[in-house]
Amino acid sequence: MIDTILNHRTIRKYKNDPVDDHVINKILTAGIRASTTGNMQVYSIVVTTGQELKKKLWEAHFKQDMVLQAPVIMTFCADFNRFNKWCKLRKAVPGYDNFLSFFTAAIDALLTAQNCALAAESLGLGICYLGTTTYNAEIISELLNLPRNVVPVTTLVAGFPDESPELTDRLPLEAVVHHEKYTDYTKEDIDRHYFEKEALETTKALIKENKVETLARIFTEKRYTREDNELFSRKLLEIIKEKGFLT
Amino acid sequence: MIDTILNHRTIRKYKNDPVDDHVINKILTAGIRASTTGNMQVYSIVVTTGQELKKKLWEAHFKQDMVLQAPVIMTFCADFNRFNKWCKLRKAVPGYDNFLSFFTAAIDALLTAQNCALAAESLGLGICYLGTTTYNAEIISELLNLPRNVVPVTTLVAGFPDESPELTDRLPLEAVVHHEKYTDYTKEDIDRHYFEKEALETTKALIKENKVETLARIFTEKRYTREDNELFSRKLLEIIKEKGFLT
Repeated sequence: MIDTILNHRTIRKYKNDPVDDHVINKILTAGIRASTTGNMQVYSIVVTTGQELKKKLWEAHFKQDMVLQAPVIMTFCADFNRFNKWCKLRKAVPGYDNFLSFFTAAIDALLTAQNCALAAESLGLGICYLGTTTYNAEIISELLNLPRNVVPVTTLVAGFPDESPELTDRLPLEAVVHHEKYTDYTKEDIDRHYFEKEALETTKALIKENKVETLARIFTEKRYTREDNELFSRKLLEIIKEKGFLT
Repeated sequence: MIDTILNHRTIRKYKNDPVDDHVINKILTAGIRASTTGNMQVYSIVVTTGQELKKKLWEAHFKQDMVLQAPVIMTFCADFNRFNKWCKLRKAVPGYDNFLSFFTAAIDALLTAQNCALAAESLGLGICYLGTTTYNAEIISELLNLPRNVVPVTTLVAGFPDESPELTDRLPLEAVVHHEKYTDYTKEDIDRHYFEKEALETTKALIKENKVETLARIFTEKRYTREDNELFSRKLLEIIKEKGFLT
């Protein structure tokens, strides 16, 4: 179990081979064992394998190749639609049209997604998370016919790996773990925690390739810019509201 | 691996035995292998074991017994503080004071939490998620000295189980999985999906004990009421703003 976790690699190249339905079912069955708030299971998983719809999702996910290549796309949604319908059919008046409920449902969906990711990996598949889900939640929502009270929060693509990447670097454990209370970082802490990452040959190559002064500037100026973040923040808040979670 | 996932039970009673530091480190090491947006690792984990602080957290978590009993409390936080500090020390101007960045960091924190939960279980420990983290995020934030740009999103307690509960019921897979696109639920779908849950002896006992007509009303009238949801929604949005993510 821990080996599966420790060996996780994000896979960005996939073979053409389809994934059997019984394998997909094993992954999903593992997914729904994740903890869920009050056992409400306020999430849904949309499994897309058809080429035509996958192509549209690929566009929504900024045309990242793996969305077209990987045979299975799982979109994990915060979902109070099913629960609300059940309440109304059982003489109960639901009060879940608010931000807390959205966030609760998002937590449910994300824990389920990570169970699915690990189950897939333990079955020999590779996976990749698509952070673009929250950027283009509205388009994805339209493509997948998501009704009111359902918001996509993350996506996993899965399939047989066609690459064997190295383990990705991580900050040392002490950089992200605090004992008893949070201890804020001094300049020296930051230098120490980021030393290894900044010393990597891959980091140096990336800086050269991007023609910037530091790795941090690749993040702020190329990958996750203020302009993009502010645009997609507005869009994400809009769809949360539109779906009835910010009344 | 899949066995660990399938055997998950939430544990609410714990033995007194402490958890060795090397076991805690194994759990955390597994945690940081989770996928993280752009490998930014925009989360922190606060590990609390001291009795005095645990008692204060227990109060913040609505005095749920397991918070006092379990020897280890891990608070998972969306954290752009470390990343922003790094950016500023590297001549980069961070643009992460917005809702998208908060949500990105929350996703990072939640995937990490689920890795820790499964690692703990595979090492023979029991775990319980505390949904109350988002309810009382402000109080928890004060107790743990969380600075600007850090918001607690979930908590795990862990320790040696002092109970062996049955597997919790789940809706049938077809209730939460959609193929290709989302298919909205008819009355018949809802009846079918909730049939098993509503037929459980434990459900019937719960309805009797709560003196209500249906299981759904226990959720809407006792456990997750509109009044509470609206109060805690306001508080959650307030702390997200206060921490600099809704500018």
